[in-house]
Amino acid sequence: MMIAASASNRAIGRVLDNLDREEPAALERLFRLLAIPSVSTDPAYHDFCIEAAEACAGALRNIGFEVRVEPTLGKPMVIGHWHAPGGRRARPRVLFYGHCDVQPPDPLDQWSVPPFEPRLVEDPHHGKVIVARGASDDKGQLMTFIEACRAWIEVHGELPVDVSVLIEGEEESGSPSLAPFLAAHGDELKADFALVCDTGQWDADTPAIIAFLRGLAFSEITIGGPSRDLHSGIYGGPALNPLRVLSEILAALHDEKGRVAIPGFYDDVRNPSPAELAVWRGLGFDAGDFLGAVGLSAPAGEQGFSVLEQLWSRPTAEINGIVGGYGGPGTKTVIPAQATAKLSFRLVPGQEPQKILDGLHRFVEGRLPADASVSFAHEGGSAAVGFDTQAPAFQAAVRALQAEWGIKPVMVGCGGSIPIVQSFRTRLGMDSLLIGFALEDDRIHSPNEKYNLRSFTKGARSWARILAELGAIDAVAAT
Amino acid sequence: MMIAASASNRAIGRVLDNLDREEPAALERLFRLLAIPSVSTDPAYHDFCIEAAEACAGALRNIGFEVRVEPTLGKPMVIGHWHAPGGRRARPRVLFYGHCDVQPPDPLDQWSVPPFEPRLVEDPHHGKVIVARGASDDKGQLMTFIEACRAWIEVHGELPVDVSVLIEGEEESGSPSLAPFLAAHGDELKADFALVCDTGQWDADTPAIIAFLRGLAFSEITIGGPSRDLHSGIYGGPALNPLRVLSEILAALHDEKGRVAIPGFYDDVRNPSPAELAVWRGLGFDAGDFLGAVGLSAPAGEQGFSVLEQLWSRPTAEINGIVGGYGGPGTKTVIPAQATAKLSFRLVPGQEPQKILDGLHRFVEGRLPADASVSFAHEGGSAAVGFDTQAPAFQAAVRALQAEWGIKPVMVGCGGSIPIVQSFRTRLGMDSLLIGFALEDDRIHSPNEKYNLRSFTKGARSWARILAELGAIDAVAAT
Repeated sequence: MMIAASASNRAIGRVLDNLDREEPAALERLFRLLAIPSVSTDPAYHDFCIEAAEACAGALRNIGFEVRVEPTLGKPMVIGHWHAPGGRRARPRVLFYGHCDVQPPDPLDQWSVPPFEPRLVEDPHHGKVIVARGASDDKGQLMTFIEACRAWIEVHGELPVDVSVLIEGEEESGSPSLAPFLAAHGDELKADFALVCDTGQWDADTPAIIAFLRGLAFSEITIGGPSRDLHSGIYGGPALNPLRVLSEILAALHDEKGRVAIPGFYDDVRNPSPAELAVWRGLGFDAGDFLGAVGLSAPAGEQGFSVLEQLWSRPTAEINGIVGGYGGPGTKTVIPAQATAKLSFRLVPGQEPQKILDGLHRFVEGRLPADASVSFAHEGGSAAVGFDTQAPAFQAAVRALQAEWGIKPVMVGCGGSIPIVQSFRTRLGMDSLLIGFALEDDRIHSPNEKYNLRSFTKGARSWARILAELGAIDAVAAT
Repeated sequence: MMIAASASNRAIGRVLDNLDREEPAALERLFRLLAIPSVSTDPAYHDFCIEAAEACAGALRNIGFEVRVEPTLGKPMVIGHWHAPGGRRARPRVLFYGHCDVQPPDPLDQWSVPPFEPRLVEDPHHGKVIVARGASDDKGQLMTFIEACRAWIEVHGELPVDVSVLIEGEEESGSPSLAPFLAAHGDELKADFALVCDTGQWDADTPAIIAFLRGLAFSEITIGGPSRDLHSGIYGGPALNPLRVLSEILAALHDEKGRVAIPGFYDDVRNPSPAELAVWRGLGFDAGDFLGAVGLSAPAGEQGFSVLEQLWSRPTAEINGIVGGYGGPGTKTVIPAQATAKLSFRLVPGQEPQKILDGLHRFVEGRLPADASVSFAHEGGSAAVGFDTQAPAFQAAVRALQAEWGIKPVMVGCGGSIPIVQSFRTRLGMDSLLIGFALEDDRIHSPNEKYNLRSFTKGARSWARILAELGAIDAVAAT
């Protein structure tokens, strides 16, 4: 055992040295991927989404993976496999998941550099940071894992565990092709567990592993009224205004205590245990700092819950966008024929996305005045997920992260949703180890998205160590 | 007197013949003006606005007006004068007003023909119609007057009254340059009264003269929250969402009876007299038809008022547009840093635009939760106006329109606002004769705007007759 551990220490040391030495080349590889505007939610960028998938496939192929790019009805999926040469003995197998699509870059005028011309910028708080759309979500994170694999294979000719990789191109647009793809390729993709790098650290010095994630349900509601746009002078007064109907419905979504007012919305919510709540209180989370960093001071969520509870254990209803009437410069006195709102709901364990959307439909339909109509479009979602954090893989990751960062990682909740994690569990019976190196101030989904250079380099080193520790589980089991 | 009247009959007959004969050429002149996309509210179209002003100046110059194009801080104004040759005797002088700017054409995908490629289209209800942005509002209407002048001058070498013309290029964007322009050029523009062709008929067979107009106040409110766009997974719950704040404020603008809920909003409203209400009831207005034509069935305005009252004598608050968050295709789970609504208020006699806007400011500011901010932009307005319909010029117009249409014109209210009319009254002490040939279904401000060919040809004939009758007032007075 001691010998194995020492060998392992020497083995990982050489991998880490390689990563440190190769940093400039790794950065160059990342920048090439960041320069591809793979915005999956907007059809205008479709060709770039394909280009990004091909670029990821190339990166894996270059380091020795068997790779193919599989078409779907939407964006293609990249599948890669690395097996131990000669298939020596049964080893654990992991499936790494990342996504190569990005959020739309708008509002463009708020970027200080062009979103798809990645740059290394000196930041007063973080030293060097990589600025580009996708730097943190998720191209930079995805590449930490590929670089870790590259270094292992370059140094040792092999990986400590068998590794498959799945890179998706539709994560930012609700992953519509994922369910049919997993149904068709589940046997090929099924591993002992999944590794997912699409989350953040607790803070700049403290790594984190996700213990549970909120789910998501989303819908686009369009209120119709007059059969065409009307002049507000000629028709204003008696004519129904869909923007007014929409505003009234949206305003009714929350009660005066900040609770979602859709009947039955909270029926299936499972509350965290007193023990979990005690752990959260011990995390030293500073709600003032958290909100202050984005210009806010007062929690705007449900009254009676801490900010951490509002983020991790309480569901939400959010308006993500409204479009209706005239939005150009100046004035146009129009009563529009229709008005649209994009809504999303963060869900917690127990809530079913479809049941939430059904409740939304009834809620809206019950509030329509005479002559108003509603249609719902672009709906989807995924339920919340929780993990057994005592499982060997989780504990292996804890050891690896502690070695790299010098501090024990914290087990946290995640307010966001990663639909793939739910799909891996329900379709492939596979739990996920969600480890990422993003920071709260990475401005993902916002202008000037960034990823600290330190996140990128220590992220790759962390994965190199996690692979070693996962390999060591096997060594122990084989003893 | 009889001789004068007969002479006048023969004189007008030849003018009307000229107009009938010249219809194809007149249409060609109109189409050239309609082809210029003079959208004043959008800076991208600035050069086209100048081109449209030059085109109007050219049209007037061609028929013998002294014309110049005067620059302003915004779009240029066209001023033209036609004086009796030799300045024979004191004659009444009229100032004709029209505007050569148009509303933005969006949503472009709802046009069946390109908005700036005017066409004559066969319409099942109206026969030939002119389809283009500005066909009805206001280029088509404006050209009815210029064609009437052209025919008079071509046939008789003179006009029956002295005519000045003012063509504005910013009517659709709140006429910001008008007040300083009238202050600087008031002496030159002051006439006995103004003629304005920017309104509609009672129905396709019944001409109308405007007895009063609603006023307008407008504002753009922007609610600010977080210092940047946020990811709704990471921040959703505790983070203030400006779209929600905006929706709640907009929903509060009306009470459950459809009344505007801004304190003091109705304080200064002057109600129509019982006699006026009796006249309105006698007009045979069919509210079901009016609403049915635009796909509506139930009046959505203030409870307790007829549709005609809601349109003519009741003020309104309308949401003309909302922009906030993600509006592109698909889903983006963003909490935006800000959200904007464009609002406008139709005012009735007694209400002051600035007082209404002050009330709006207090209303919004009083509803801001912690961390929310508001800013107001693009504000302006004009008060409502009422006229003495027994004045000689009004009665002259009644005679002329009755002769052309075979039916007595009705004196109506106008739900829309024409800021120039208020400015003419307050700045130049001049009342306006508002006569137009637009129809309710002309789709002004909407896709597929049209102007009936019949409106155009009978409109020009109507103005030719009105000029004759206005000249006859003078003849009577001079007798």
